[in-house]
Amino acid sequence: MTVNNTRKVTIAAIADLAGVSVPTVSRVVNGRSDVAVHTRERVEELLTRHGYRRRAAPARASSGLIDLVFNDLDSPWAVEIIRGVEDVAHAAGVGAVVSAIHRRSSSAREWLDGLRQRGTEGVIFVNSMVVSPLRAGLRRLNIPVVLVDADGVPQPDTSTIGAANWEGGLRATEYLLGLGHRRIGFISGPPHLMCSRARMDGYRAALDAAGLPVDDALVHQGDFYHESGFAAGTRLLGLADPPTAIFAGCDQMALGVYEAVRRRGLRVGDDVSVVGFDDLPEVRWCSPPLTTVRQPLAEMGMLAARTVLRLAQGEPVESRRIELATELVVRDSARPPRDR
Amino acid sequence: MTVNNTRKVTIAAIADLAGVSVPTVSRVVNGRSDVAVHTRERVEELLTRHGYRRRAAPARASSGLIDLVFNDLDSPWAVEIIRGVEDVAHAAGVGAVVSAIHRRSSSAREWLDGLRQRGTEGVIFVNSMVVSPLRAGLRRLNIPVVLVDADGVPQPDTSTIGAANWEGGLRATEYLLGLGHRRIGFISGPPHLMCSRARMDGYRAALDAAGLPVDDALVHQGDFYHESGFAAGTRLLGLADPPTAIFAGCDQMALGVYEAVRRRGLRVGDDVSVVGFDDLPEVRWCSPPLTTVRQPLAEMGMLAARTVLRLAQGEPVESRRIELATELVVRDSARPPRDR
Repeated sequence: MTVNNTRKVTIAAIADLAGVSVPTVSRVVNGRSDVAVHTRERVEELLTRHGYRRRAAPARASSGLIDLVFNDLDSPWAVEIIRGVEDVAHAAGVGAVVSAIHRRSSSAREWLDGLRQRGTEGVIFVNSMVVSPLRAGLRRLNIPVVLVDADGVPQPDTSTIGAANWEGGLRATEYLLGLGHRRIGFISGPPHLMCSRARMDGYRAALDAAGLPVDDALVHQGDFYHESGFAAGTRLLGLADPPTAIFAGCDQMALGVYEAVRRRGLRVGDDVSVVGFDDLPEVRWCSPPLTTVRQPLAEMGMLAARTVLRLAQGEPVESRRIELATELVVRDSARPPRDR
Repeated sequence: MTVNNTRKVTIAAIADLAGVSVPTVSRVVNGRSDVAVHTRERVEELLTRHGYRRRAAPARASSGLIDLVFNDLDSPWAVEIIRGVEDVAHAAGVGAVVSAIHRRSSSAREWLDGLRQRGTEGVIFVNSMVVSPLRAGLRRLNIPVVLVDADGVPQPDTSTIGAANWEGGLRATEYLLGLGHRRIGFISGPPHLMCSRARMDGYRAALDAAGLPVDDALVHQGDFYHESGFAAGTRLLGLADPPTAIFAGCDQMALGVYEAVRRRGLRVGDDVSVVGFDDLPEVRWCSPPLTTVRQPLAEMGMLAARTVLRLAQGEPVESRRIELATELVVRDSARPPRDR
């Protein structure tokens, strides 16, 4: 038996093809969890192949909610993204539900069940790692997804909002070169994250363009946390020929470098220049205030919220991935090198 | 005509008493906004006087949501409270809707209308200033309210979660006295906030207990923002007989003092001791790491969420106001004075 693809395919026809009952197909279509995995996959495959058109999940039209999902809420920039999302949600008259599901991947199904019951216009994920296991369930529920790409891990079939990491790395390094620095240390984030890689490549590109070799002794790997910036900064300052400036791949690591400089009895700015990446709210207030590359986190949140609301309305989006510009914010932590 | 208070009062009886139609009383009972203010007030008053028992708003039982409302989302400790609330909400299987309504008091009615449509188990306010204009509307909707009391402004008829501010001020000052400091500067928050007043009274109590007079030249007023800590710190360090230690009424002002110390060519810890109040995540990472009084913000959020869920279930709460303990966190910014 075949199903004619040009006519509207019915649940009954899919049930025949799959050799299961009509209620079972219906349960799959409605995103219910009480269907064996193997059966669900076969039915899903048939639904897709024969172009079955789901209706929008009934709760969606009137949920009045969008969801913002973090890996974890201990990230210092979480509140920036929340602020941007909330701003757009408020203007649109919808509520922004904030969740963290990192430590609870086993409960992803529960989270989905809750979502199905109360409804949502769409979900914004702030960490790509949490998307994958939930993607199939959200697709079954016909819920649009947008990813705010703090990590830079590509997700080809998801609308993604990112920042221009490579360009930010380039500009920061160019700025230090312009101040007269020639030995510039770099502390990278985790190498498996694309944003981390892009920032380092920007650093290398600026040195290349200036005709300077990349000295591997000046490139250290961190993990985006403060402690790793402190450790890498301590090693860099302990070199026989230490760098006169250090570009840290994120602000938290830059603050770790501050502490390494202080512990050596030196001063940030006067003795060693430091540049960060992110522009967290608090780096305006560190001593001295940090020169850093600004990621427009609140604006990324705003764009993500607008995108998910457009997808919920069935409107098209221009591009699968949008990168917002980064910007160098000059404060007081980077100055011309001493011995020039 | 009178209504017998011991029997169940009906909407029809209230309508008779108020001289309005039954649908009008019904609209008031259901929290609808399309009733003239004067009429609503008269009906409300009669409903209260005759002990009319509202049913729970129909949406409430199944909303699967609690609301967390900030004055503004730019506070550095917002994410701490969100984390605590989200943790309890997640465990209870409800979503946490995060809003900021500070700059939009004109739209309070819209916010209430949205709330009525989607339903909520209860609302947690993080700033008491936003509660008052919304209280009557929330009461009409039969929605329980809990206040996380960052300000310390008493709200007699609202369940409030606070921190032990006076005790925190006392402990911080005792600690500095124990290190050998005798001239201890204090930078207060805005005087109209109770938490600010309580911290200063703790400072004064510790000096009194040690038999030391309070030198008014050493007490400066700030506004809880960084810049005011910088300004007050600069004035204190410029005194002919400057303090050897400065206790700032919040961490942001303490970081302002850091900058004042640096600009004077001095070092925090070595030359001037600094103690803060809050224990924001980032003060672990300033240089040197800040000794401060910890407010358990995440725990306050957790307790607020638990309380609002209990109220939503109609359960009683033990006390209208609960204060969680503060705790001195010793790091590296306060040391014995130099010239001892």
